[in-house]
Amino acid sequence: MISRQEKLNRKLKEKEIDAFLLTNSLNIFYLYQVWIEGAVLVTPERNFFISSPIYKEEVMKKEREGEIIVYEDSLEKELEKLTGKLRLKKYGIEANHLSLSKYDKIREKIKGEVIPCEGIVEEIRSIKEKGEIDKIRKAGEVTVAAFNYLKEFFHPGITEKELAREAVNYFLEKAEDVSFPPIILFGERTSLPHARPTHRKLKKNELVLVDIGAKLEDYCADLTRTFLWGEVSEKWKRIYRLVKQVQEVAIESVRPGVKCCKIDEKVREKISAAGYGSGILHGTGHGVGLEVHERPVVRYTSDETLEEGMIVTIEPGIYLPGEGGIRIEDMVLVTSQGGKILP
Amino acid sequence: MISRQEKLNRKLKEKEIDAFLLTNSLNIFYLYQVWIEGAVLVTPERNFFISSPIYKEEVMKKEREGEIIVYEDSLEKELEKLTGKLRLKKYGIEANHLSLSKYDKIREKIKGEVIPCEGIVEEIRSIKEKGEIDKIRKAGEVTVAAFNYLKEFFHPGITEKELAREAVNYFLEKAEDVSFPPIILFGERTSLPHARPTHRKLKKNELVLVDIGAKLEDYCADLTRTFLWGEVSEKWKRIYRLVKQVQEVAIESVRPGVKCCKIDEKVREKISAAGYGSGILHGTGHGVGLEVHERPVVRYTSDETLEEGMIVTIEPGIYLPGEGGIRIEDMVLVTSQGGKILP
Repeated sequence: MISRQEKLNRKLKEKEIDAFLLTNSLNIFYLYQVWIEGAVLVTPERNFFISSPIYKEEVMKKEREGEIIVYEDSLEKELEKLTGKLRLKKYGIEANHLSLSKYDKIREKIKGEVIPCEGIVEEIRSIKEKGEIDKIRKAGEVTVAAFNYLKEFFHPGITEKELAREAVNYFLEKAEDVSFPPIILFGERTSLPHARPTHRKLKKNELVLVDIGAKLEDYCADLTRTFLWGEVSEKWKRIYRLVKQVQEVAIESVRPGVKCCKIDEKVREKISAAGYGSGILHGTGHGVGLEVHERPVVRYTSDETLEEGMIVTIEPGIYLPGEGGIRIEDMVLVTSQGGKILP
Repeated sequence: MISRQEKLNRKLKEKEIDAFLLTNSLNIFYLYQVWIEGAVLVTPERNFFISSPIYKEEVMKKEREGEIIVYEDSLEKELEKLTGKLRLKKYGIEANHLSLSKYDKIREKIKGEVIPCEGIVEEIRSIKEKGEIDKIRKAGEVTVAAFNYLKEFFHPGITEKELAREAVNYFLEKAEDVSFPPIILFGERTSLPHARPTHRKLKKNELVLVDIGAKLEDYCADLTRTFLWGEVSEKWKRIYRLVKQVQEVAIESVRPGVKCCKIDEKVREKISAAGYGSGILHGTGHGVGLEVHERPVVRYTSDETLEEGMIVTIEPGIYLPGEGGIRIEDMVLVTSQGGKILP
C-alpha cells in the first residue's frame, strides 16, 4: 500500500512543486494524525510542522516525523525565516483553504515563487483506504439505527427541535458526535432542503424528513429518509416512488470511470420527464469522509470521474414550495463491481 | 438607533466603495436575518440576494428588502450578468471570507474594480446592541448553571468524553446548542489548552478544566473554569490564585479607549514576573457574539481598541507541559463605567 505521504509526494513531483504548504487542518490530520492550528511545509527532504503555541505539546509528539516550529507572533514570520533558509524555488499553497487576506500575508513573506493549487490532498482523500471505508460503514450503521430509534418518537405535538435533540443524544451515546446538525423537518417545511429545525409541531399524516449522520473515529456518515407518516396524499406517495426509483437508477449507474456529471444529468432528466423539473434544488450527491461534504461533487457542473474506493452520496430530491419535499439519500461505495450501498 | 444597514452604508461611503459583496453567511444573517448560501450585493440603491437554489424558498421571503436572484450554475455567472447591468465602478469584497480560489473566480467575472476589504461587517458586529447583549447574557447564565450541573458528575472513573456528553445534553435541553464542542480535560491533560476530550478517566485529587458555552438564539457564550478537585498540591493552588488575580487585574483594566494589546501585555508581564512566562500559550481573550471567536482580538499583536458595547473574554492561563494547566475565562462587557462581567 502506498502511504499517504508518498501519494502526496508523487503529486507534487507531477506538478513540479518543490514544497507544499498545508494550511487545511483536516488535510494535516489526514496526513499526520495530529490536530494543529498552523501549517505543515512538506518538502522532499522533510516536513516542518509550524504550530500555534496552543498546540505546542501535541505537535512535539511529531518530532520524529519532522522539524517542529512553534510560532510566537504569527505563522507568516516563521515562514519568512524558514523559506529564507530552505532556498527552494516553487511553493505550492492550498488556494481553496486560504482566505485572500491570509494568502496576501503569506505570499509576501515566502522567499520563492508561490503556486496556488487546488484540491491536491482532497483528491487523495476522495479515494478511501480500507480502514476509512470501515469507519464510514460503522458511522453509517449507527445512522441507520438512529432512523429506527427516532421513528419511535413520532407523535403529534413533538417539535422538529425536540426530535433533532434526540438524534444528537443518540449519536453522542452510540457514536462520538454528529457529522452535522440534524436536518429534521415536518410537513410543508420538508420543501426546504437545508432548513434548521424549529418549534414546528408534528401533526398527524405528514411528511417527516430526517437528514442525519453519525461521526465515528473522525469519519462522517450522511443519510436521509423521508417518512410518509400516517396517511399522506396519493400525490406524495407517487413522488416518493419516483424519487426512490430515480435513486435506484442513479445507484446502478455508479462504477469506476463514470463521469459524475452524467449521473446528475440522468437524475435531472428522469425527474424532469415526470414533470417535476422545477422541484430540483440541488445536485445528486457528494463525497463523504473526514468531512460530510467532500470530493467528488456529483452535479452537472462537475468535471470529476468516479474511481474505485470513492464514497459518494446519491440523494435525489423533489421539492414543492409551500407543500413539501422528498429526499432519499444513501452512501455508495464505488467498487469494480459497481456501486455498493453503505452500510 | 442606527440600523445595521445604515452602519454598513456609512462604512462603504467612507471607503468610497460603490457596492459591497457579502459572502460570509454570518454577516448576511446579522444584516438580514436570513441564512443563505450565496451572496448579497449591497448597493446604495438596493440589495441583491443571490442564493443557491437550496435556499430559494427562504430567500424569497426577502423580496421586500431587495431583488432576489437564484443562481443555477454558479454564483459567478450571476455576478457577471448583474455587474454588467449595474455598471458601478468599485466593488468591495470580504477578503477574509473568500478563499483565494473563489476570489479568483469572482474577480474575473465582476465588471468593475474589485477592492479587497477586511472586517467591515465584523467591526460593526463587534459592538453589540442591547438585544444582543441580552442574548449573550442569557447564554452565559445557562453556561454558569452548567458548571454546577457538571460538578455533580465528578467522580473517579468518569471520562472526559462522558462529561463532555453531559455538557452537550445540558445545552441542548436548557439552551439550543453548544457554541463549540466542549473542552473537558483531566489531570495532566489540562496543560493542552484546546485538546479534544478523550477516554481519560478522572482520578481523585486532580485538576479538571471545563471550557464550555451555550448557544441561544444564535448567540454564543464562552466560559472556562478549572476545578481543583479534591486535594491538589500547594503548587497548583498557588498557580490558581495567580491566574485568578491576573484575571481580576485584566478585567479591571477593561474600559472604552483601552488598546487590546495593552491588556494582554499586562497579563504576560504579571505571569512572567511570577516565573511562569513559558507557561503562556495564548492571548488574553477575544470578542464573542454570533461566533464564539470574533473581533476584537485581545493579544499583544492586536491593533484594536476597546469600545463601549464590546463583549470580550478575559481568559489568562498557565500551562506546564505534562503536568497540567489553569485557565479562568469570563465574558466582560465594555461599559462607560468599565468592564462588567457577564452574566
